[in-house]
Amino acid sequence: MDFKKVDKNDIDYLISVCEQDRVFIENEINEDYSHDELAGIHKYPEVLVQAKNTEEVSKIMKYAYDNNIPVTPRGQGTGLVGGSVSLHGGIMLDMSKMNEILEIDEENLTLTVEPGVLLMEISKFVEDRDLFYPPDPGEKSATIGGNINTNAGGMRAVKYGVTRDFVRGLEVVLSNGEIMEIGGKVVKNSSGYSLKDLMVGSEGTLGIVTKAVLKLLPLPKKAISLLIPFPNLEMAIETVPKIIKSKVIPTAIEYMVKDVILASEEFLGKKFPDNSSDAYLLLTFDGNSKEEIEQVYEKVAHICLDAGALDVLISNTQERQDSIWSARGAFLEAIKASTTEMDECDVVVPRNRVAEFVKFSNELQKEFDIRIKSFGHAGDGNLHIYVLKDDLSEEVWEKKLADVFKAMYSKANELGGKVSGEHGIGYAKKPYLQESMGSFGMELLKNIKLSFDPKGILNPGKVC
Amino acid sequence: MDFKKVDKNDIDYLISVCEQDRVFIENEINEDYSHDELAGIHKYPEVLVQAKNTEEVSKIMKYAYDNNIPVTPRGQGTGLVGGSVSLHGGIMLDMSKMNEILEIDEENLTLTVEPGVLLMEISKFVEDRDLFYPPDPGEKSATIGGNINTNAGGMRAVKYGVTRDFVRGLEVVLSNGEIMEIGGKVVKNSSGYSLKDLMVGSEGTLGIVTKAVLKLLPLPKKAISLLIPFPNLEMAIETVPKIIKSKVIPTAIEYMVKDVILASEEFLGKKFPDNSSDAYLLLTFDGNSKEEIEQVYEKVAHICLDAGALDVLISNTQERQDSIWSARGAFLEAIKASTTEMDECDVVVPRNRVAEFVKFSNELQKEFDIRIKSFGHAGDGNLHIYVLKDDLSEEVWEKKLADVFKAMYSKANELGGKVSGEHGIGYAKKPYLQESMGSFGMELLKNIKLSFDPKGILNPGKVC
Repeated sequence: MDFKKVDKNDIDYLISVCEQDRVFIENEINEDYSHDELAGIHKYPEVLVQAKNTEEVSKIMKYAYDNNIPVTPRGQGTGLVGGSVSLHGGIMLDMSKMNEILEIDEENLTLTVEPGVLLMEISKFVEDRDLFYPPDPGEKSATIGGNINTNAGGMRAVKYGVTRDFVRGLEVVLSNGEIMEIGGKVVKNSSGYSLKDLMVGSEGTLGIVTKAVLKLLPLPKKAISLLIPFPNLEMAIETVPKIIKSKVIPTAIEYMVKDVILASEEFLGKKFPDNSSDAYLLLTFDGNSKEEIEQVYEKVAHICLDAGALDVLISNTQERQDSIWSARGAFLEAIKASTTEMDECDVVVPRNRVAEFVKFSNELQKEFDIRIKSFGHAGDGNLHIYVLKDDLSEEVWEKKLADVFKAMYSKANELGGKVSGEHGIGYAKKPYLQESMGSFGMELLKNIKLSFDPKGILNPGKVC
Repeated sequence: MDFKKVDKNDIDYLISVCEQDRVFIENEINEDYSHDELAGIHKYPEVLVQAKNTEEVSKIMKYAYDNNIPVTPRGQGTGLVGGSVSLHGGIMLDMSKMNEILEIDEENLTLTVEPGVLLMEISKFVEDRDLFYPPDPGEKSATIGGNINTNAGGMRAVKYGVTRDFVRGLEVVLSNGEIMEIGGKVVKNSSGYSLKDLMVGSEGTLGIVTKAVLKLLPLPKKAISLLIPFPNLEMAIETVPKIIKSKVIPTAIEYMVKDVILASEEFLGKKFPDNSSDAYLLLTFDGNSKEEIEQVYEKVAHICLDAGALDVLISNTQERQDSIWSARGAFLEAIKASTTEMDECDVVVPRNRVAEFVKFSNELQKEFDIRIKSFGHAGDGNLHIYVLKDDLSEEVWEKKLADVFKAMYSKANELGGKVSGEHGIGYAKKPYLQESMGSFGMELLKNIKLSFDPKGILNPGKVC
């Protein structure tokens, strides 16, 4: 792609829009902005701009459009696929200062926010008002804008769905600076193609999200978690379709194995309630009364025991639940801390194929003589599988990683799965998306991209 | 648009694909195929073909693409905006013979169907297995393909959402005959732009749906309806935001007025449980136990009584509920039977603006001296407002209808609403979509359309 390099005039223009102290060049740009949390790619933007409002974003985009300068939007940079790395240099648009909660509307059950608000700030704000924003990705310090751009999922997708299901409306700035409202506070909509749903999950390649109207629910009054040890992982995971088939929908069903728990204990310096078994299911149930939840979880506890579970540990205090879920939240960091470098496969498969996929990925460990660790959302079929470099040489690592990934994504395809459940495609997973969509499908995606961004300046090099 | 006329060679080709007895021309085409249920537009296709499988659809589309012949897909023709009328002649593709339920998968809670399966067949099939497909549009004899194409909503959207929320995957045939699988049985997906969500609600203008994977839920074990009379409509509707604000989510909240109820009684020849009050709210609650539901509806009953409700009539038997809901289901037909011709406004507004909108539309009756009747989904802000011709001359009717519609859609826009909540844009609502999206927004829709259908042969003249 043939973009214009950023020069002195461009910087002057950006300063005229945003004030000096929010425009950074060269050494002023912190190293953090050159990468995300995982994708193994490093590249600095030519200029970093911290936008404060929609008008600024619009002016910057119009200028970039007129001058053919690439723009990469960025939230907290917690992504795992290089989506927020400015591969082609140009302008990085840091959205994290647009972080106001603008309105809570209790009559329409909506929350209107700027894109830089953190997920944990949203939870706290709404839960203080007995309301509930169900999407619950592991990384609570991500921005809502980032969550919208990757259609983030999280633990509670089993019962409640993903970010897309909780975005009612968006304000976006398009590649030419045009400001557009799509969707709104309405509950139903059949008025032309759903631009809202197209924008969600588009990883900043179709427009810059500058405002979002989120759907809320009443906060469930009670939640109980069950930690259920099994003799081995296969037995644990094979129990999940039996739970679903019993016509009970837990809020979350996670799986975890002993050595990931041990790594997390070491990382956090805190004991997990139990680490004596090889594998665990962690389930949560929520509802409005103790009786309602008990009825349901007792049924599930019996299903698990019939399927060979060793015990059922009930966590009905906030403290106990926090201790379990904080360990769960640390798995990614704990695995990362245990090796030199790693890469992640975020596949999703139909939930009755999870056992088969996990078994397959475990076999790859032996076949390729490489460490592979996994945990994930057994209840919605979305697995996080980490391939670890340890002390492999760069060359061997790259070869093995490519082979292991290729095998995993092709297995996912065979099982009716998809390349990414919730982390997106970004830069790192493009070849696998290509393989799974085929050339005709990719052509469609590219045409859609061109409809929104004819000059290709929005987050170039990502998705398609 | 410059399409090729259908000739003898084309007919011969279609017969070679589909057999003689599923290809109809001229007098063989039933009058029903020249219109839908409302839009006031009549046009016959040049040839009507009843497809039996995806391969046939693919061959027909490939041929149509190569020969530049327009193709209009059609289900049961129950639409209200002319979406399934072959405005430009060409081939009408009747999908109603592709009506097999292909698979129920209880481990993944999905149902795979062909597009011609009727909504009422789906309900029965899944409910017999204690499962639940929540979308519940009034017209139960519509096909699921039609529901997907209009992103149909229905009564239960308040609690469960709309058709889009229950479509996990689609098989579609694109304009050039290419068969494409989008989405699947997976619960999460962040693998490129969401083509699935783009296809849902696209009214047959982007592709022909030939298979759908629907999401199911466990069937709630109990449901109770409350019929709540109010002294007037304003008081009834103004109660709805109070219910939502109380952090209770009913399954459905409908509003209705006395003269619509009387019309329905006359139309059905059956008494409604009560017709003594001017206005009613009809609420349903579902759940897994009587206690769970009672707790919730008692709270709501108190809110309604505090807001001036005259009584709370509880329907806890299946028989009583059926009698109320069958009357509700007949409203459209009853209003239609009471006049010579009518047209419908299917706006959706934020749910705390419903009262304002209904009041506004009532005032239009006096202002324009024309009968206007309405009922609708108070709980999700989606109103069905009917403007009646009665004995007006064609000329006066057309003028008044245009003026009234213009006023209503511009009011909807002002209140943050949208042109269509669940019936789509089709042909009839195009000018209003244009006004609400603006020229830039329409340009985007057109570009998306071109990405999928570069020759514009798929359902031309609809949406954009």
